[in-house]
Amino acid sequence: MKQGDICEQELNAIRDSLEVLGGKWKLRIMRHLNNHIGEINTFKKIQRSVEGISAKMLSKELQDLELNQLVCRTVQEAKLTTVRYDITDYGKSVFPVTESLISWGLNHKKRIQQGI
Amino acid sequence: MKQGDICEQELNAIRDSLEVLGGKWKLRIMRHLNNHIGEINTFKKIQRSVEGISAKMLSKELQDLELNQLVCRTVQEAKLTTVRYDITDYGKSVFPVTESLISWGLNHKKRIQQGI
Repeated sequence: MKQGDICEQELNAIRDSLEVLGGKWKLRIMRHLNNHIGEINTFKKIQRSVEGISAKMLSKELQDLELNQLVCRTVQEAKLTTVRYDITDYGKSVFPVTESLISWGLNHKKRIQQGI
Repeated sequence: MKQGDICEQELNAIRDSLEVLGGKWKLRIMRHLNNHIGEINTFKKIQRSVEGISAKMLSKELQDLELNQLVCRTVQEAKLTTVRYDITDYGKSVFPVTESLISWGLNHKKRIQQGI
């Protein structure tokens, strides 16, 4: 493959990723779920963790993530019905993306604090 | 640090990164510049490579990236004035972010093509 074609393929792959994971919230939701595997992640719990997100937006984002099989929604019928959200196995593949953003964000903050 | 605090710190770091690198275009522009280090990246050349971006949007995005010291704009005065854009050393720190998105995007596309 020619150099130009490789670059085109790479930029297209970034575009494809951002179509699924882009925006202010999805990667933060995914990271919360990844950090709390095995726990019961209710809507409220996620909303508390992802600071600033409205209920309407969280609902939309969770639906999108579910559609892309990154998140699984389960309704548990009991005396009190609980809805829980879990990261899927496929969703776990997003981990390296959040990892690179965390590491960049921490470094960027340090740089700003040092006044560079 | 407690587990909850670590999660909060991580989600904040993702938020900070996305404030600087978020949106549809910036990471694609950064990757183009990273792929073409040493070449003369004119506005036109970048616009051709980042498919779909308008001149107005590219101009805004490049200004934002320059403000954050990720991109350097140089005006070369000659018979024909050339404006070139280069990735800065700090800009190179964005590479792992684009790398993780490329890798995820390629895998996601393969998954869709396999009809999963």
